Amino acid sequence: MPPTLPPTLTISAVPGIPAIEPGDELAAILSDALAAAALAPRDSDVLVVSHKIVSKAEGRYVDLATVTPSPPALELAEATGKDARLVQVILSESSAVLRHRPGLIIVEHRRGFVMANAGIDQSNVSGGTPGERVLRLPENPDASAAALRAALQARFGVRLAVIVCDSVGRAWRNGVVGLAIGAAGLPSLLDLRGERDREGRELKVTTVGFADQIASAAELLMGEGAEGRPAVLVRGLSWSQPDAPVTALLRGPQEDLFR
Amino acid sequence: MPPTLPPTLTISAVPGIPAIEPGDELAAILSDALAAAALAPRDSDVLVVSHKIVSKAEGRYVDLATVTPSPPALELAEATGKDARLVQVILSESSAVLRHRPGLIIVEHRRGFVMANAGIDQSNVSGGTPGERVLRLPENPDASAAALRAALQARFGVRLAVIVCDSVGRAWRNGVVGLAIGAAGLPSLLDLRGERDREGRELKVTTVGFADQIASAAELLMGEGAEGRPAVLVRGLSWSQPDAPVTALLRGPQEDLFR
Repeated sequence: MPPTLPPTLTISAVPGIPAIEPGDELAAILSDALAAAALAPRDSDVLVVSHKIVSKAEGRYVDLATVTPSPPALELAEATGKDARLVQVILSESSAVLRHRPGLIIVEHRRGFVMANAGIDQSNVSGGTPGERVLRLPENPDASAAALRAALQARFGVRLAVIVCDSVGRAWRNGVVGLAIGAAGLPSLLDLRGERDREGRELKVTTVGFADQIASAAELLMGEGAEGRPAVLVRGLSWSQPDAPVTALLRGPQEDLFR
Repeated sequence: MPPTLPPTLTISAVPGIPAIEPGDELAAILSDALAAAALAPRDSDVLVVSHKIVSKAEGRYVDLATVTPSPPALELAEATGKDARLVQVILSESSAVLRHRPGLIIVEHRRGFVMANAGIDQSNVSGGTPGERVLRLPENPDASAAALRAALQARFGVRLAVIVCDSVGRAWRNGVVGLAIGAAGLPSLLDLRGERDREGRELKVTTVGFADQIASAAELLMGEGAEGRPAVLVRGLSWSQPDAPVTALLRGPQEDLFR
């Protein structure tokens, strides 16, 4: 990264994105919004998209009225005070429950993300009885990012990158931050092994969560509230390492000292 | 945050900052560099500064030749394969060792940060035998940020914020990201309790690591290499909540399920 560090980044919220419904052509909607806002992507731009609109377009809803909780879900619901049907959906999306306490369930999502409630959203989910319809993460966020990227590249004739982001809590620190849950067209993890500092010493820090830092930067413009800002364009970055999806960011349970 | 979400952020590396030595007037050096680059701060700008130049100006070096390891340091050095004198400095900076394995020591720093090696840097530390001089974090990063802020505000006659950042590893994910270790003039943690989404539901996400997201955005321009980019100006943010230092971001051991 050092040889190509940019002097300036410009990060712009994409205005005019309507409420997204299942089956919507998200790439076309985003393309139209970018073009209308004079934000037509250029080479090396990164479009950061909230996972919520990707999930909505993919119809990743579950109506809790249709869910029958299993015995493990009933047990975990009792221990946490959560709706057993919601707990059932969380368990269906997860490969392991790492921690729980009243009001909180932290799992390893099937895609390897460690997060509360398997990333399932109850807010900003319209339709049905409030709280009865919940929204899961995209089925395969790296693939969603790749598909969006391909469509945007075809439309605009440039090489860009796409990140699908979520707001995720952390060990040790309060507050959520933006993280990448899907990415295409950039190295999600930068590998600096072999690079040297200006004293000629090899760098102590050897990998950087590049896509996560971009997601955090973008979420400064997205906010958590009325969800009017589900897409943000980041302009000015450059990179020379090969593309790697978000799976490169996931530390396996064997290497992880904190799960 | 939602009522004042900005449409665009501009993030600029501050060029022309020389190598910093103990006793240097960092605020004056940064002010001159900002002015020379036509980046004179405006109201609500956030200046993000690498902890390294703050530590250097504060003379936070330790010469390992002067360090005598204690029995616990010798034991931990044996278990991890690290220099026992470095381990002694790590222990002196820490309130607890959380995990260790060969090549890795993760501690709770005296200021409450969970990080490898208590944030001690061996790279980019000039002078003496290579590797013999190490650099600790600033003594009190929130206070360092507040002092820098006061000096910059006096110089430029505006209200700005200052963040002192570090690149820190994480549970569950590969790669470091920029985090705030000191802050002044902004709410390090945004509290969204009581805010509602556009369906009128109370937000599930209630706090946001605002200063951490800004630090991650800034580190996209800082890089990890030749350290030519120790200061970055973030323009376009706004906030309405009261200032809170980085201590607001630190989850106490009692509340933390992962230590």
